[in-house]
Amino acid sequence: MNEPLRRPLPDAVERVKSALAARFGNKVSTAEAVRKQHANTTTWLPNEAPDAVVYAASTEDVQDTVRICAEHKMPVIPFGTGTSLEGHVNAPFGGVSIDLMEMNRVLAVHAEDLDCVIEPGVTRKKLNEHLRDQGLFFPIDPGADASLGGMTATRASGTNAVRYGTMKDNVLSLKAVLVNGEVLTTARRAKKSSAGYDLTRLFVGSEGTFGVITEITLRLAGIPEAISAGICPFPSVEAACKATIATIQSGIPVARIELLDALQVRASNLYSKLSLKETPTLFLEFHGSEAGVAEQAERFGEIAADLGGGPFEWTTKAEDRTKLWQARHDAYWAVINMRKGCQAFATDVCVPISKLAECVTATQADIEKFKLVAPIVGHVGDGNFHVSVLLDMSDADEVARARKFNERLVERSLSLDGTCTGEHGVGEGKIRYLEAEHGKTGLEVMRNLKRALDPDNIMNPGKIFAL
Amino acid sequence: MNEPLRRPLPDAVERVKSALAARFGNKVSTAEAVRKQHANTTTWLPNEAPDAVVYAASTEDVQDTVRICAEHKMPVIPFGTGTSLEGHVNAPFGGVSIDLMEMNRVLAVHAEDLDCVIEPGVTRKKLNEHLRDQGLFFPIDPGADASLGGMTATRASGTNAVRYGTMKDNVLSLKAVLVNGEVLTTARRAKKSSAGYDLTRLFVGSEGTFGVITEITLRLAGIPEAISAGICPFPSVEAACKATIATIQSGIPVARIELLDALQVRASNLYSKLSLKETPTLFLEFHGSEAGVAEQAERFGEIAADLGGGPFEWTTKAEDRTKLWQARHDAYWAVINMRKGCQAFATDVCVPISKLAECVTATQADIEKFKLVAPIVGHVGDGNFHVSVLLDMSDADEVARARKFNERLVERSLSLDGTCTGEHGVGEGKIRYLEAEHGKTGLEVMRNLKRALDPDNIMNPGKIFAL
Repeated sequence: MNEPLRRPLPDAVERVKSALAARFGNKVSTAEAVRKQHANTTTWLPNEAPDAVVYAASTEDVQDTVRICAEHKMPVIPFGTGTSLEGHVNAPFGGVSIDLMEMNRVLAVHAEDLDCVIEPGVTRKKLNEHLRDQGLFFPIDPGADASLGGMTATRASGTNAVRYGTMKDNVLSLKAVLVNGEVLTTARRAKKSSAGYDLTRLFVGSEGTFGVITEITLRLAGIPEAISAGICPFPSVEAACKATIATIQSGIPVARIELLDALQVRASNLYSKLSLKETPTLFLEFHGSEAGVAEQAERFGEIAADLGGGPFEWTTKAEDRTKLWQARHDAYWAVINMRKGCQAFATDVCVPISKLAECVTATQADIEKFKLVAPIVGHVGDGNFHVSVLLDMSDADEVARARKFNERLVERSLSLDGTCTGEHGVGEGKIRYLEAEHGKTGLEVMRNLKRALDPDNIMNPGKIFAL
Repeated sequence: MNEPLRRPLPDAVERVKSALAARFGNKVSTAEAVRKQHANTTTWLPNEAPDAVVYAASTEDVQDTVRICAEHKMPVIPFGTGTSLEGHVNAPFGGVSIDLMEMNRVLAVHAEDLDCVIEPGVTRKKLNEHLRDQGLFFPIDPGADASLGGMTATRASGTNAVRYGTMKDNVLSLKAVLVNGEVLTTARRAKKSSAGYDLTRLFVGSEGTFGVITEITLRLAGIPEAISAGICPFPSVEAACKATIATIQSGIPVARIELLDALQVRASNLYSKLSLKETPTLFLEFHGSEAGVAEQAERFGEIAADLGGGPFEWTTKAEDRTKLWQARHDAYWAVINMRKGCQAFATDVCVPISKLAECVTATQADIEKFKLVAPIVGHVGDGNFHVSVLLDMSDADEVARARKFNERLVERSLSLDGTCTGEHGVGEGKIRYLEAEHGKTGLEVMRNLKRALDPDNIMNPGKIFAL
């Protein structure tokens, strides 16, 4: 698509390095270890290091870096915690990685408005620690302790999204440095607006391809008066999915509803020292008043029993709830633990919930067909699930089978009116599926938008769009 | 900004009319009465009629109309029920109005997924009649029985938004005919996705300036098992606003929380034959289980009492609830009724809820200062309120005072980090405030997006952007 889709010429790289050194001194690094550490770290994709890394401490630092890069048509890649899963922080054409983790201040908390203003390097755990005394929390929880800038850029979500929405629903406004070095503010702090185009949502999920996010206004929630959580086994994936649909249809405001397939339960039993029945299982959480969470849990128990599930055991005790969700969060490590020396390759599709049982069941058959070891966990209230494919990366045949399996998973999701990624984003890993998902027209509209805001294609090039 | 910002030349108009007549026969009209009826009808802005009106019955009709217009750089203006309030359907440069009210089919209801697929001419009341048997409803309620295409295009919201969100939160996907005649599908039917730019949200609220919406996939909600509603008087606007803040902070999932100021209560008493105390009053509604709505109402009653409000009288009886909300919905007619022969000019601002009492109180002082008769109603859970200024349109001085008052209201909202329009949209009426709200950079980004998708500026020109 846009230029440049090649590395800048070596002398341009050198000029940028000199200009950055003059401006930033020891806050810019070209050391190989630093560069590699800033190319993506937790995915199966190869590491593509940038030419330099700038540690930005302010919006002005970001503006100056972008201006220097733009002058020489040098790529700019924003970097947070490096926990993205599809190669978003790779530098396929070189360029300058802007490390935003020093921009980690909570700038304001407006308790009456249930919002806060933060810098992009604040992580979700740090924000929640900051908020706890005020009885507030930020509900989006993708598992990793990601930076909120990165979560905004990838439109992240996770276990709480069924009740609290995704980043698209929880970013009120943001500031971003555009390719011309100007700072865009996407919206006011009002809870809603009809004043022109929704620039906030345009930037949420744009993966750094429009600009570098330097400030975010987030919606917050009150810490619920009471929380109940529990575990419910089911005879089949289908029964668990039907129970999920019935729960949501009946208006129970479930806060978390997570599916673990039988293999994932086995892995979690081993790793987290649980003794759950090895069958498809839902982990649930309810938020509300004391009476409310009890009522929600009881009503869910009845739904589960009607579908052959149960017994549904639930608790409001904090230590038991913590153990339960620790096991869910450790699902990834439980999987890795199943097969020593292996890497887990995490997939991510999302389908209409009515198609979920069909999609998961067909996927399990495919796992068998391709002779893979691959547990499934799902944010099933949203129709979103992940397969963690355990890979011996030195086994080329197994890696090839996993790729083919992933391709078929995406095709299956698309054929069921689903998406190729529910929450991980496109990055480099899902580029090839975008046209199948959005059609030529949809992709061309996206490209037109990109060209409009970044004509020289220097903002995180090689992501989202096909080369 | 983009071309053309002048009327097409007369011979272009004639060529378009001939081409439309050849294609559409008696489904295109150039009669003056029809053209005037399709320029905006319910606002204080002057009527600017299009050159022709096409009654589209299908996406193909829309495509052909857009292609014919594009060939001659003739403006295209989508039309629904004509209930928009800021001149969105006016044709300041002439052009062709596409009446979409014959595209009024509900194409699918997916009860398990809580969504439906509709054509843009379906109105919200018609949709809710269609859904009732299935225990589902579409919660967004702007008051008028607007078309869902229009509600999508203006990012409408209304009384239920505090719980169910606005159109931005309830449109899953849409199809739109672009200026090149192609049909864009903005997203799959999955509940969430991170697959590239959020084209859905880009089109929601774009007021017809990117394309003509021809199909919408909407999120639905289950009809609550129980509903309670009630009325609570307060000693002051400030106390009512504080009660609203405390209600939301404490996690009560209030479905509606509407402020009527003392003057609006008087108007509603007269019109709807109520006998409410003429003081700032909240109208509320709670959705949930039988036990849940009782608990919510009781907790709200305690909060209100703590702030000097009450007594809070509530009911679950359907007939009493209907009477209550009928009075709220009739607020506009109640206002008109206060001063015969007058027109009500509806304003619309939205501020962070912590600033709401300050903004409403200062606005009341301004109403007095400008010697206007102007009741206030507000979707206060969102910080959004409207002033209905009663105007004798033949009194030039009064009209001038109302305009000045509105300008100051917008400035006040912006100074409190609010927006110039919470839900009515920009249309023609709010163009002048966009730069103050979004800054030069924000407005330039919006213009770049517009240029990218509509380089000849024929899709509803003269809206959103300054001339």
